[in-house]
Amino acid sequence: MTHNTFGHLFRMTTWGESHGPALGCVVDGCPPGIALTEDDIQPWLDRRRPGQSRYTTQRREPDRVRILSGTYEGVTTGTPVSLMIENTDQRSKDYGDIADKFRPGHADYTYWAKYGLRDPRGGGRSSARETAARVAAGAVARKVIAAAGMEVRGAMVQMGARGIDPERWDWAQVAENPFFCPDGETAEAWAHDLDRIRKAGSSVGAVIEVRAMGVPAGLGAPVYGKLDSDLAAALMSINAVKGVEIGAGFASAALTGEENADEMRKGADGAPEFLANHAGGILGGISTGQEVVARFAVKPTSSILTPRRTLDRFGQETEIVTKGRHDPCVGIRAVPVGEAMLALVLADHLLRHRALGQGDGGRGWD
Amino acid sequence: MTHNTFGHLFRMTTWGESHGPALGCVVDGCPPGIALTEDDIQPWLDRRRPGQSRYTTQRREPDRVRILSGTYEGVTTGTPVSLMIENTDQRSKDYGDIADKFRPGHADYTYWAKYGLRDPRGGGRSSARETAARVAAGAVARKVIAAAGMEVRGAMVQMGARGIDPERWDWAQVAENPFFCPDGETAEAWAHDLDRIRKAGSSVGAVIEVRAMGVPAGLGAPVYGKLDSDLAAALMSINAVKGVEIGAGFASAALTGEENADEMRKGADGAPEFLANHAGGILGGISTGQEVVARFAVKPTSSILTPRRTLDRFGQETEIVTKGRHDPCVGIRAVPVGEAMLALVLADHLLRHRALGQGDGGRGWD
Amino acid sequence: MTHNTFGHLFRMTTWGESHGPALGCVVDGCPPGIALTEDDIQPWLDRRRPGQSRYTTQRREPDRVRILSGTYEGVTTGTPVSLMIENTDQRSKDYGDIADKFRPGHADYTYWAKYGLRDPRGGGRSSARETAARVAAGAVARKVIAAAGMEVRGAMVQMGARGIDPERWDWAQVAENPFFCPDGETAEAWAHDLDRIRKAGSSVGAVIEVRAMGVPAGLGAPVYGKLDSDLAAALMSINAVKGVEIGAGFASAALTGEENADEMRKGADGAPEFLANHAGGILGGISTGQEVVARFAVKPTSSILTPRRTLDRFGQETEIVTKGRHDPCVGIRAVPVGEAMLALVLADHLLRHRALGQGDGGRGWD
Amino acid sequence: MTHNTFGHLFRMTTWGESHGPALGCVVDGCPPGIALTEDDIQPWLDRRRPGQSRYTTQRREPDRVRILSGTYEGVTTGTPVSLMIENTDQRSKDYGDIADKFRPGHADYTYWAKYGLRDPRGGGRSSARETAARVAAGAVARKVIAAAGMEVRGAMVQMGARGIDPERWDWAQVAENPFFCPDGETAEAWAHDLDRIRKAGSSVGAVIEVRAMGVPAGLGAPVYGKLDSDLAAALMSINAVKGVEIGAGFASAALTGEENADEMRKGADGAPEFLANHAGGILGGISTGQEVVARFAVKPTSSILTPRRTLDRFGQETEIVTKGRHDPCVGIRAVPVGEAMLALVLADHLLRHRALGQGDGGRGWD
Repeated sequence: MTHNTFGHLFRMTTWGESHGPALGCVVDGCPPGIALTEDDIQPWLDRRRPGQSRYTTQRREPDRVRILSGTYEGVTTGTPVSLMIENTDQRSKDYGDIADKFRPGHADYTYWAKYGLRDPRGGGRSSARETAARVAAGAVARKVIAAAGMEVRGAMVQMGARGIDPERWDWAQVAENPFFCPDGETAEAWAHDLDRIRKAGSSVGAVIEVRAMGVPAGLGAPVYGKLDSDLAAALMSINAVKGVEIGAGFASAALTGEENADEMRKGADGAPEFLANHAGGILGGISTGQEVVARFAVKPTSSILTPRRTLDRFGQETEIVTKGRHDPCVGIRAVPVGEAMLALVLADHLLRHRALGQGDGGRGWD
Repeated sequence: MTHNTFGHLFRMTTWGESHGPALGCVVDGCPPGIALTEDDIQPWLDRRRPGQSRYTTQRREPDRVRILSGTYEGVTTGTPVSLMIENTDQRSKDYGDIADKFRPGHADYTYWAKYGLRDPRGGGRSSARETAARVAAGAVARKVIAAAGMEVRGAMVQMGARGIDPERWDWAQVAENPFFCPDGETAEAWAHDLDRIRKAGSSVGAVIEVRAMGVPAGLGAPVYGKLDSDLAAALMSINAVKGVEIGAGFASAALTGEENADEMRKGADGAPEFLANHAGGILGGISTGQEVVARFAVKPTSSILTPRRTLDRFGQETEIVTKGRHDPCVGIRAVPVGEAMLALVLADHLLRHRALGQGDGGRGWD
Repeated sequence: MTHNTFGHLFRMTTWGESHGPALGCVVDGCPPGIALTEDDIQPWLDRRRPGQSRYTTQRREPDRVRILSGTYEGVTTGTPVSLMIENTDQRSKDYGDIADKFRPGHADYTYWAKYGLRDPRGGGRSSARETAARVAAGAVARKVIAAAGMEVRGAMVQMGARGIDPERWDWAQVAENPFFCPDGETAEAWAHDLDRIRKAGSSVGAVIEVRAMGVPAGLGAPVYGKLDSDLAAALMSINAVKGVEIGAGFASAALTGEENADEMRKGADGAPEFLANHAGGILGGISTGQEVVARFAVKPTSSILTPRRTLDRFGQETEIVTKGRHDPCVGIRAVPVGEAMLALVLADHLLRHRALGQGDGGRGWD
Repeated sequence: MTHNTFGHLFRMTTWGESHGPALGCVVDGCPPGIALTEDDIQPWLDRRRPGQSRYTTQRREPDRVRILSGTYEGVTTGTPVSLMIENTDQRSKDYGDIADKFRPGHADYTYWAKYGLRDPRGGGRSSARETAARVAAGAVARKVIAAAGMEVRGAMVQMGARGIDPERWDWAQVAENPFFCPDGETAEAWAHDLDRIRKAGSSVGAVIEVRAMGVPAGLGAPVYGKLDSDLAAALMSINAVKGVEIGAGFASAALTGEENADEMRKGADGAPEFLANHAGGILGGISTGQEVVARFAVKPTSSILTPRRTLDRFGQETEIVTKGRHDPCVGIRAVPVGEAMLALVLADHLLRHRALGQGDGGRGWD
């Protein structure tokens, strides 16, 4: 969780700039004996890939992933898994104007202030392109947690001011529209909204929800290695994210203790059953055995066609219009990224929990 | 950011249970040459201390801090600063009932599921009492960042469904009421609200805002060591926190790109001036030089007088009433804790930035 | 393995100066359910304690350890174990002369150069007194590895130019003489040697050997988390240590490949049996299932009665005689410290191995 | 210093197997503004490359390095530097025999015991080929420390039982013979020795010495982040290394305190001057300002033509002869690897020291 490495035992180190020759990651700490080929990773990259609908950037990257190490005869060996994706559509000319000017809302000024220089081509390291490496690493994490019965899923639940109707939540819908929207009616409304925004050269924010099913009780750790603390760091590290919440989240501020208590009963199988999930599946930083539920807010894309006032690197006042190929709502492509981060956090905590020698979570009654 | 240690270069390791003989922390990585005595730490602990108004738990702890190492003649030497606070009011009898039953909303069940056993006295390690150690370590961090011109402040901005009026924000008010409320009128309304809630044996949630002034541009780091990512982890690690946001936060989802762009102009002193701060002082994970602004949501105290349905550790269905001495709104005492976490994150990032040899942030124009 | 923290999953953070009010450590990551009281720790501290023979410093410290957190009813709970030892015999006057002068061979000059100031009382943080905290933490590690069938032992095998006769190695002898010497005859010779050295106000170096029995095959990890790499760091971190070797160590440079190969046969129980142990129980950074064998060299105590030329902090040339109470051979008390470090490394690697979900080491035949 | 990552602030993560498509590393934490192209790295790889004399393996790899990220217009940007070397001469057929048998002295058995499976092609991850990535990362570290006035150099000082004559040490000789030997006469003797050993299908061990010049006083850190502790871990992590020593090392055990004290005088320039360097430039884990001197022992290559008794993975007793292309003395090619590790440790500690805000080492007199 420092520099360009995420995780403690299951770790991902990403590298690469938007317009460099390639980008990739090293996944370290992956347990041995897990079947893993490019075919396990590519579908997740395809979901995130730009240029799939008129609502995402028209930059076209095949995003073909290669496994360069860490497997033998299609199975992980316990050594680092190096993944690489070559950049093919680098079209740097699009970005010439921003070499000297700081785009408001982008990291141009802050990288320059921090490092004294920056790679201006497409945002360099701060480009959302880095998230392709996360999705690739997340695909490996998905295999690790699947072996322990866990699965992650995500959906966009708000675009601009318009949220979905939770009553209409249908996971099957998520694959049926270009918004990863679990509510078909809202998806249609979003299509109209976003056409208008896109044509105006504007952009809009979004809220994404990610969930993990099959998480056993007992993953997580006090006090600074809490599952929700790591998850907050993970989701907040995604480009353009400005807020993270677990379970009832910010709404819990307005609840009373009576409303917020997730009461417990004994389920049909003798396992504990919770009568609600305000906690989002986490209490005291440790999983309860319920679904883990998190949401994160993505700000509107900062690249817009309306001129904005800014400075250049010589300290002069100027204006800028960002002409490149951009997503009118970066939140859409943040869905598979959020899923990947959740999978990475769970894989890491699964291994950390195993280290205690307590089994893979939960315990029987006294 | 794992186990019981927070931070990379400026690190805090906390220890201690609610009802053990003492609690404390080791602050490691503190630069040498900083004046530090107990008097620099005690006032911050006093602000957080329970029993100061009728709105916080009546547990009475003097919370006297002792410096056991790391200073010589009142100045830090660069070696670990060990801080200890003895527990004096342990009254374990209050908690007898919960040894076998899991309190809904508490970490009782999850600790038991994870570790196979737990210290039931007052929540053991999951007690909010651990935050006293954070406040003590945060006091050391305050000294470190003050030497670089930075300061942190916090306030409660929502209690239950009632938020403050931002137009009436007055920092001077924060010390004038028992809620750390920057809006005197709202503070009075909260007093009525909370009297009612307290008498009903109920509880309520809250939202806290913390800010840092004087932060130079350039603190933070891509990609998994982002300032906001670390801050999210820091705030989410506080007991009962369910959401974190930076700047415009969740509200940014409903903004357009035009609204959200914080335009830049040249200030009177030649330094960049931002015309808004939707970013909360952070872009691309790196500070912009504006105020850093974060908010976090605290759920209502789970200890309430109304019976709640639950299980015991034998798997039997039962009910529980939590009779101990508790805060009707734990959000109040979370204010100094949130400030401490912000100070700790900034101290860590200040040191991490210095490691690059680029000075203490920012740079001149080309 | 940075700052004052050692270990990854099983971690020890130590604090305290030679002449401060106390010293101690926080042991974090200890698995739950392990019986642990002060009585499990005190005997190991007693072995290391000064003043037990005429061959160790006459400073008299009872070195009573207190457990301040992390256990409940005599059993670890999985939360941090805080251990504290109060300093009672601080006699600072002994050290007055060295406040301004740099003692050759000590860390006086380097601390001053690094931090710009230093705690001169008894060497401050660089004092060997810090190793008491290691021994205390090591006692907890011993319990953790004992539960997995492992045990560590140590002995002094060379003092000055005189080494033991390996043919006479007898573990029972180690407790019978004040040198932790496994060879009774050599122990007698050392007694004469050291009496002479002590009376001359001089000092002498030593070599210590530590071994671990019962280590399963499979502990360790490529490539920078190798068992021997961590062990080298652990032993080299002990005060005054200038060399570390594993198995045949430096002698292996003079061997041929034929001599050095530890051939394998099948043992009576079907388990692999090695015909030699030049590897010291570690190949490719991973344990083989044989005894782990390491040695480390301790330089002669730098505090001697003969005047040495040095500088003071004003840059003036001067001389110094170190009059305090010192060990003529610090190597003696390094034996329990080396054992503790070996136990800590094994506990950490045991947990790290468990994280892979491969059981506690080794595997059956195909 | 865990998994496949080395370093804290200046970090290297390596990946790749002997016979995979490529190997490489990610160098993270490199300060911005350092001129860096492939031409800065390639010469160091060429020094390490196999097949350059009859004394190293005849495997022929061009070992061409590519920079995939982290630079812009030939200058580092502060983002991760990804380096890749493609494997071209993989000739797996040479290794067929060892898929089922465990080669004594190799990591075959331990990887199998740990992971339950292994990549048998050329030793997989445990192959010395991994060290190419270290040399590449080390080249980046060399640039970082050079900017602070530091340089590292190495030499082989013992092969088999024959050591060099320190009186004849001449750095210029190191580039003149295939042994990196600083003593021309000894190099000639080694040529005869090694011809004999090579023809016999045997192998021999070696001792390497690495030194750093220009190291300022003040690098390093108590207590578990000592410069020598990190250096010991670094050197012990190199394949086949069985011992590490600093300064006088194991010989210091036989010294008296008088002999071992490195007395201090004031040099011509007013800076402290040491009259000897038994400490190897490190006291209390912190650099003294003298040359840093370390040595490490490399065991004889385990691949030899004489049959050795061993087991196969079915638990059957068998014999093995290792026929591949191997170095009769792997110590030779360990010289550039040792230099690289020393450079990496110094780069990391340079950054860690800068974090304290105390300048780049040393301080003036009071």
